[in-house]
Amino acid sequence: MKTLLLNSEDVHHNARMPELIRAIEDAFAAYERGDAQMPPKSYIDLPQYNGDFRSMPAYLEAKDWDAAGIKWVNVHTDNPGDHDLPTVMGTMIYSDPETAFPLAIMDGTELTMQRTGAAAAVATDHLAVEDATSMGIVGAGVQSYTQLRAISQIRPIEEVVVSDLDEDRVARFLDTFEDEFDIRAGSIEEAASCDVLSTVTPVESPIVPRDAVGDHTHINAMGADAEGKHELADDVLLDAKLVIDDYDQTTHSGEINVPYNAGVLDDDDIYGQIGEIVVGKREGRTADDGITVFDSTGLAIQDVAAAHVVYEHADENDNGYPFDLLGLDG
Amino acid sequence: MKTLLLNSEDVHHNARMPELIRAIEDAFAAYERGDAQMPPKSYIDLPQYNGDFRSMPAYLEAKDWDAAGIKWVNVHTDNPGDHDLPTVMGTMIYSDPETAFPLAIMDGTELTMQRTGAAAAVATDHLAVEDATSMGIVGAGVQSYTQLRAISQIRPIEEVVVSDLDEDRVARFLDTFEDEFDIRAGSIEEAASCDVLSTVTPVESPIVPRDAVGDHTHINAMGADAEGKHELADDVLLDAKLVIDDYDQTTHSGEINVPYNAGVLDDDDIYGQIGEIVVGKREGRTADDGITVFDSTGLAIQDVAAAHVVYEHADENDNGYPFDLLGLDG
Repeated sequence: MKTLLLNSEDVHHNARMPELIRAIEDAFAAYERGDAQMPPKSYIDLPQYNGDFRSMPAYLEAKDWDAAGIKWVNVHTDNPGDHDLPTVMGTMIYSDPETAFPLAIMDGTELTMQRTGAAAAVATDHLAVEDATSMGIVGAGVQSYTQLRAISQIRPIEEVVVSDLDEDRVARFLDTFEDEFDIRAGSIEEAASCDVLSTVTPVESPIVPRDAVGDHTHINAMGADAEGKHELADDVLLDAKLVIDDYDQTTHSGEINVPYNAGVLDDDDIYGQIGEIVVGKREGRTADDGITVFDSTGLAIQDVAAAHVVYEHADENDNGYPFDLLGLDG
Repeated sequence: MKTLLLNSEDVHHNARMPELIRAIEDAFAAYERGDAQMPPKSYIDLPQYNGDFRSMPAYLEAKDWDAAGIKWVNVHTDNPGDHDLPTVMGTMIYSDPETAFPLAIMDGTELTMQRTGAAAAVATDHLAVEDATSMGIVGAGVQSYTQLRAISQIRPIEEVVVSDLDEDRVARFLDTFEDEFDIRAGSIEEAASCDVLSTVTPVESPIVPRDAVGDHTHINAMGADAEGKHELADDVLLDAKLVIDDYDQTTHSGEINVPYNAGVLDDDDIYGQIGEIVVGKREGRTADDGITVFDSTGLAIQDVAAAHVVYEHADENDNGYPFDLLGLDG
């Protein structure tokens, strides 16, 4: 028996977005139903290197499949400047739950981008207006691409406004998508007035003001992933139908962590978890809703669900590199 | 930059035992000095498959090296019978602490055997009589081989007695070592009367009685790794100079867990942690000591230290398979 090695390109190629979105939706539902196990992330802090490691193990049982695995991922902020390496790198071990055999080892960095896009798409599908044709993106870094790729699968996006202080990043983004969309660079205000907005920045002071947001804009707040980070003005959160991916993670390190811990926003301001909407316990967008917000921190079950899709496709199409890691063929 | 893939054979070949023993000793010392991080193991329990997954992340800083990584390992007891797979399989991701780049991904099963043998050797070096020439082994399964390989590096072992109910296992063990040692099959009593004894079984009722143990025998109790398991009669533990690898792990799932939680044995019966002896805070064997026991549960820092040795050797000798997992060469 061999373990399938899947590099970043293999992951990119096999993360078929429509299936990925369904798998992430299945994962949110499994979590809500109690059919998932997701121990708290454990951290190794290395202040001497200005970095940390996180381990994210998970298991989930969807209707007709189950999956287990672990993502080992880091944040080393000096990497780009000092080592010509990305700040965040991930490695995913994807295992057969029945036997624990490591079916695949794959690049967790590309996997994270793909599953994060898919999570935003699931939320957008339940929370954005049906005929959403315009999308704004604030922050044109590595995570922004899958936002547009995923969300345009579930809404008829035609017009795109991208906003970033870095002109090179904007140019690269425009270049990538100019043949597919009516796309332009714009201000944060222009991006925020679209039908759907994804914010994908690491800022610690909100950059999206309340009055810039359209009357029925759905916002995917993807950027905050640590204490102290937030992208949206408190008023946006307070006026919105506010949906989170996980209570513990979002109150600790998600978009809502700063106002929540300052007492500006409390449990009553949270409409529910995305899983509750997916399984039908709570309604998604209704005719009465104005602004909606999805606070996404990223769950280990998303990685496992995404790895499932990538592995199944790669295996079917003979992609990747089979390797007898455990020496079981010998 | 490429990640080095090391299969079981590569791990076996590059786990140079003398260096491995030193690295494990360094790891115990780092842990004692507070120069290690080892978050509690997190578990995913899958009763429907009669199995579980454990994630074991760790970082340690030795005098002239540091190392980080995670082992993802399972216990699926139906594997041999139902799936022709080992009960325990492990995968290790070994990362550069400074940048978090995954330097190597290696077979964690072979790694576990090697580092477990090395841990027993470290304890034996500090706790056995200097001129130990005889060694008993109770349990001739996959973990027994590295016990003899490692311990014979630090003591002049000539005579070996191996005891196991399974004749095939005994025959395989004898076959492997007959050219190197004066080796024979024997009873548990015969094994327990040797200068050094390693017990490597999964039993839940003690199989080594007090009166079988030699006057100055050092025992490595390696088998217990879960609540309810123990191999040595309570009296052996109570009469011995009792050394553990880690207080939390051993009282929860080590050799001492059953008598400890039954109140038969308490904190006063524990002499100390192996790290205290390694750094010189407590003495190892003295002229006054009779029986000594090392209760080993296996620490995540051992895996990281062993991975360090394996990677450095493999890299130096161009072993293994370099793979651009993260797509950074593209």
